[in-house]
Amino acid sequence: MVQDTTPVAIIMGSSSDWPTMRCAAEALDELQVGYEALIVSAHRTPDRLVRFATSAEDQGFQVVIAGAGGAAHLPGMVASMTTLPVLGVPVQSKALSGMDSLLSIAQMPGGVPVGTLAIGEAGAKNAGLMAASILALQDPELSLRLKSWRQKQSEAVLEAPVQDEPVT
Amino acid sequence: MVQDTTPVAIIMGSSSDWPTMRCAAEALDELQVGYEALIVSAHRTPDRLVRFATSAEDQGFQVVIAGAGGAAHLPGMVASMTTLPVLGVPVQSKALSGMDSLLSIAQMPGGVPVGTLAIGEAGAKNAGLMAASILALQDPELSLRLKSWRQKQSEAVLEAPVQDEPVT
Amino acid sequence: MVQDTTPVAIIMGSSSDWPTMRCAAEALDELQVGYEALIVSAHRTPDRLVRFATSAEDQGFQVVIAGAGGAAHLPGMVASMTTLPVLGVPVQSKALSGMDSLLSIAQMPGGVPVGTLAIGEAGAKNAGLMAASILALQDPELSLRLKSWRQKQSEAVLEAPVQDEPVT
Amino acid sequence: MVQDTTPVAIIMGSSSDWPTMRCAAEALDELQVGYEALIVSAHRTPDRLVRFATSAEDQGFQVVIAGAGGAAHLPGMVASMTTLPVLGVPVQSKALSGMDSLLSIAQMPGGVPVGTLAIGEAGAKNAGLMAASILALQDPELSLRLKSWRQKQSEAVLEAPVQDEPVT
Amino acid sequence: MVQDTTPVAIIMGSSSDWPTMRCAAEALDELQVGYEALIVSAHRTPDRLVRFATSAEDQGFQVVIAGAGGAAHLPGMVASMTTLPVLGVPVQSKALSGMDSLLSIAQMPGGVPVGTLAIGEAGAKNAGLMAASILALQDPELSLRLKSWRQKQSEAVLEAPVQDEPVT
Amino acid sequence: MVQDTTPVAIIMGSSSDWPTMRCAAEALDELQVGYEALIVSAHRTPDRLVRFATSAEDQGFQVVIAGAGGAAHLPGMVASMTTLPVLGVPVQSKALSGMDSLLSIAQMPGGVPVGTLAIGEAGAKNAGLMAASILALQDPELSLRLKSWRQKQSEAVLEAPVQDEPVT
Amino acid sequence: MVQDTTPVAIIMGSSSDWPTMRCAAEALDELQVGYEALIVSAHRTPDRLVRFATSAEDQGFQVVIAGAGGAAHLPGMVASMTTLPVLGVPVQSKALSGMDSLLSIAQMPGGVPVGTLAIGEAGAKNAGLMAASILALQDPELSLRLKSWRQKQSEAVLEAPVQDEPVT
Amino acid sequence: MVQDTTPVAIIMGSSSDWPTMRCAAEALDELQVGYEALIVSAHRTPDRLVRFATSAEDQGFQVVIAGAGGAAHLPGMVASMTTLPVLGVPVQSKALSGMDSLLSIAQMPGGVPVGTLAIGEAGAKNAGLMAASILALQDPELSLRLKSWRQKQSEAVLEAPVQDEPVT
Repeated sequence: MVQDTTPVAIIMGSSSDWPTMRCAAEALDELQVGYEALIVSAHRTPDRLVRFATSAEDQGFQVVIAGAGGAAHLPGMVASMTTLPVLGVPVQSKALSGMDSLLSIAQMPGGVPVGTLAIGEAGAKNAGLMAASILALQDPELSLRLKSWRQKQSEAVLEAPVQDEPVT
Repeated sequence: MVQDTTPVAIIMGSSSDWPTMRCAAEALDELQVGYEALIVSAHRTPDRLVRFATSAEDQGFQVVIAGAGGAAHLPGMVASMTTLPVLGVPVQSKALSGMDSLLSIAQMPGGVPVGTLAIGEAGAKNAGLMAASILALQDPELSLRLKSWRQKQSEAVLEAPVQDEPVT
Repeated sequence: MVQDTTPVAIIMGSSSDWPTMRCAAEALDELQVGYEALIVSAHRTPDRLVRFATSAEDQGFQVVIAGAGGAAHLPGMVASMTTLPVLGVPVQSKALSGMDSLLSIAQMPGGVPVGTLAIGEAGAKNAGLMAASILALQDPELSLRLKSWRQKQSEAVLEAPVQDEPVT
Repeated sequence: MVQDTTPVAIIMGSSSDWPTMRCAAEALDELQVGYEALIVSAHRTPDRLVRFATSAEDQGFQVVIAGAGGAAHLPGMVASMTTLPVLGVPVQSKALSGMDSLLSIAQMPGGVPVGTLAIGEAGAKNAGLMAASILALQDPELSLRLKSWRQKQSEAVLEAPVQDEPVT
Repeated sequence: MVQDTTPVAIIMGSSSDWPTMRCAAEALDELQVGYEALIVSAHRTPDRLVRFATSAEDQGFQVVIAGAGGAAHLPGMVASMTTLPVLGVPVQSKALSGMDSLLSIAQMPGGVPVGTLAIGEAGAKNAGLMAASILALQDPELSLRLKSWRQKQSEAVLEAPVQDEPVT
Repeated sequence: MVQDTTPVAIIMGSSSDWPTMRCAAEALDELQVGYEALIVSAHRTPDRLVRFATSAEDQGFQVVIAGAGGAAHLPGMVASMTTLPVLGVPVQSKALSGMDSLLSIAQMPGGVPVGTLAIGEAGAKNAGLMAASILALQDPELSLRLKSWRQKQSEAVLEAPVQDEPVT
Repeated sequence: MVQDTTPVAIIMGSSSDWPTMRCAAEALDELQVGYEALIVSAHRTPDRLVRFATSAEDQGFQVVIAGAGGAAHLPGMVASMTTLPVLGVPVQSKALSGMDSLLSIAQMPGGVPVGTLAIGEAGAKNAGLMAASILALQDPELSLRLKSWRQKQSEAVLEAPVQDEPVT
Repeated sequence: MVQDTTPVAIIMGSSSDWPTMRCAAEALDELQVGYEALIVSAHRTPDRLVRFATSAEDQGFQVVIAGAGGAAHLPGMVASMTTLPVLGVPVQSKALSGMDSLLSIAQMPGGVPVGTLAIGEAGAKNAGLMAASILALQDPELSLRLKSWRQKQSEAVLEAPVQDEPVT
């Protein structure tokens, strides 16, 4: 059973990032993908960053989701120390609304990839979904759950009435 | 053998995107990962887009790399029609230098993920590397090749002299 | 009578876009132009998008108003599948205040036009007015109603006192 | 015959905008839509602006395409004096690459619509195509020419080989 | 006496701009410079704009302060129809916080100057002060009042304690 | 005669700003307004800045035009030490194309006004024209020359053919 | 004892900057580094600016922390008049969220350095820490306190639970 | 003698950064401050980054100058592993002209300071000057050299004629 393993690590620079990053966790919960959520600050706990990144594969993680805001170095630094796929979530920052986070995560130099999602909660949710899509390549049951989740999402849109619908 | 399969599709909106997207192809070549490169314009060939996206999984593709510039809708529209992992490469645009491409690709709504790489050639190269890292989860030999590639990259940096090095 | 037809389709990616897009509907109401409002998500209901766009002309629509936020692909994708005039409304997004929506809609490649209005409610209202101005080319009564609406708008400005007007 | 009329006015603030705006003219030429190209500077010839805008409808124009760069006031000012549909083309400016042009044209207040196209040549071309799509609502032959033009565009993309195509 | 004349016109596109523009009026009040405040919308009352701008000098105005937001065309259009000095105030806009207003006002083409102040209330206040500095060139008493105002401003800063001043 | 006086000071942070600022000088030349051009670096010659700004009025200057690029402090610092009208020209900077210059000049706090012109040569030219418009308030002959200059500018636009004019 | 000296000056343009700049003071308090906090407005009290900057070294200050918002000239102007290290804190501005402050402080021309920290409170705190790191080069006890402070910061992160931690 | 020590480390992510970073070296050369220039890539040689940063103080370095472009993590990551003062130089990037570099370096979270200089060569030169100003706090001879350097810089500006000086 998938739930007994924790193929996904969700890491973030600060506990204040959790309200954003929990959207990744919720997506994985819905898809029954195991994960572990950890605080790993690139800047305030660089030792833990190195330990996490260099041992992530040996710990059995297959995908790393990393969220950070401002000068957001966590996703890129993890990616520099592992060949696992790393997904970056730009957390919305106070002054610049996450534009700094987005550029700090997306604009990686050639050689060290980070797959960047949207700023904020939508990006965190999508990081969870993308982790699932990666794991589904080797897990046909997860692939079915993912397709079913997407199908339900489409149906929910199809059934949604236009709010305050005008008489047309 | 990996080379006999084409697990990666590299698609782009226009042949003018190829000078950027070839960097993805070159990375896959170096890692001996098979791929197919196709022109699929979201806006000018929407039928082909739908056919490609809805059949990509059945054709045997496991990862889609999509590059586009300006109002760059290709990666997100492919992602809306497949549950395969989709990686987006913002091609540098003429007027806005790819900032429009980046936002059009990265800022996807919750529910349909695209893993976005950097603007331009570095991003295309990293899309190739990230596709390899995803495929390596189920291909131990590719995982070794990827680790070796990264090791060589590190060594190349370590051996690089500072240009015009001053006497210090 | 104009009201018996629905020459305008107002589509939007999510029901959360309605508070913005209703400004388009209200403008059309004031000008007695018929319309239909629909939820069509480019990313979550791509099938419906294709069905809508490819049949819009046959359904009798003459102008399509499409609103979307973030990586706003709906207007451009509809435009790729119809030769009807498509007007795009960038919905104000949470993190980037609609700058992402604006660039995703306006920066279309040559060959597939979208007429883009302003971010948010003003843009939606103007999409309604512009749809009316297009339809008025073949409807002299609508043209008169539009001129009258504009005249009243000018008069309202002319009569508006400066608030808290200082004694000058 | 369509060519005997000039339903489209292409106006621009300066003759230096012509290399951009000629792309609108070329699109109209290809679709056999008549047009007149004029220099009308909002700032340097405000009288001509007023004369043009207030008489455009009486002169028989049905659509106005207006291009301008920097603090680009021409499209919005024309729109303030006519109820004809006005399409705005942000010309790429020297310092800010057309971001100033885009915002000056697109961010119109509610009440006076301008349909804004992309920055630069792609936008000008699309303004021509959009003018045609508007006129085609009342001209079935133009509608056919437009559909045929779009079809050819799609075919050109479909036939385009990937440049320097790698052996895949 | 200065107060019997109204050398300054304060115009704005909408009464909703008054909370910003009143800061210009207050600065002029403090310096005993007469002014008249008017609603003149470039887009919604183009006739009034033309009448105002072409007659401003004959009405006895010596400086025009014009505030507008979004695609802010009012200052530049007035400047195109008068050789009086025109000062532009970018009103803070909803979506883009006045960046659109700033660029629409400041980025005027060579030949038609607008002296642009800061976004929002500080800019409006400074427009009042700058109008006074212009008028002071020919009014020694105003010059003294202006110098005195500036002196008091400096003293107010010098006397201001650091809030919650720490024991240092 | 106007030319015997030098009512305008054109100052700039570096001689490398002269290719931009000479456009201000040329406009003043055309209008027969005297000026003096000086290098005054806010950052590299703060003493000269203080001496210039505090003595500008006593030297007989009536308007100061100050150009600077990047963190462009010269216009605002001069304005802090004089009550003469100060016009600021944002010189186009290398990395950020003058956006930094524009914000550094325009976003002055309430109390110390700088009238900001456009980035680069157009802005410098307009600073010259605006200085002339200020001086013209007390110089009827200059006012006539300015009106004549503007008239000629309009005529030049009216006579300009559209380049490569298409047969329409 | 360190507290008996005041090696750090914290200056700011307005008392309204204190809620931001107190974060610098608090960091210095925690590290037992003496400081003095002063209001010095570049624009409203240029005399005090000159007096402060030219005498800062003689007064015994070793590091200057300067905070300002908008067209933030204070840090750069102080740096132009002293060779002491100057640290700049961009205060978050109302309209542009501190982007103007950041560019006005960071984009100094070659020859006059300002070490710029992040926008807002984080930047102010870091200015305090950086001042301490500079002083610690000649104060081994401060160096130990700084290392201890950093160690405690790391431990606080390590002990922080993920909020609302999901069962994983 | 100062030259026998190397108190400054100049590190950069790639040898392609040297044309920028050599401006830091040249400034230190002119001030007779010893330095060592090293390639340390945060992303491609994370091991070397950790070794360098954790041993920099023990190696005798007193100030670290770190340059990087794009998602520029090097300065912040070094700062996370040392309490030495770290100065960051945003290298001008290809697509976004260094705006990404600037935000990635400047927007550090509270607790880990990086003193950020301007984008590109001016910033690198200023990093050298700022390192010297820090070291000069404990080296009176260097302080004199620095004051002399600044004095010469001022004189060079004072002697510079305005290029192509107009007859005024």
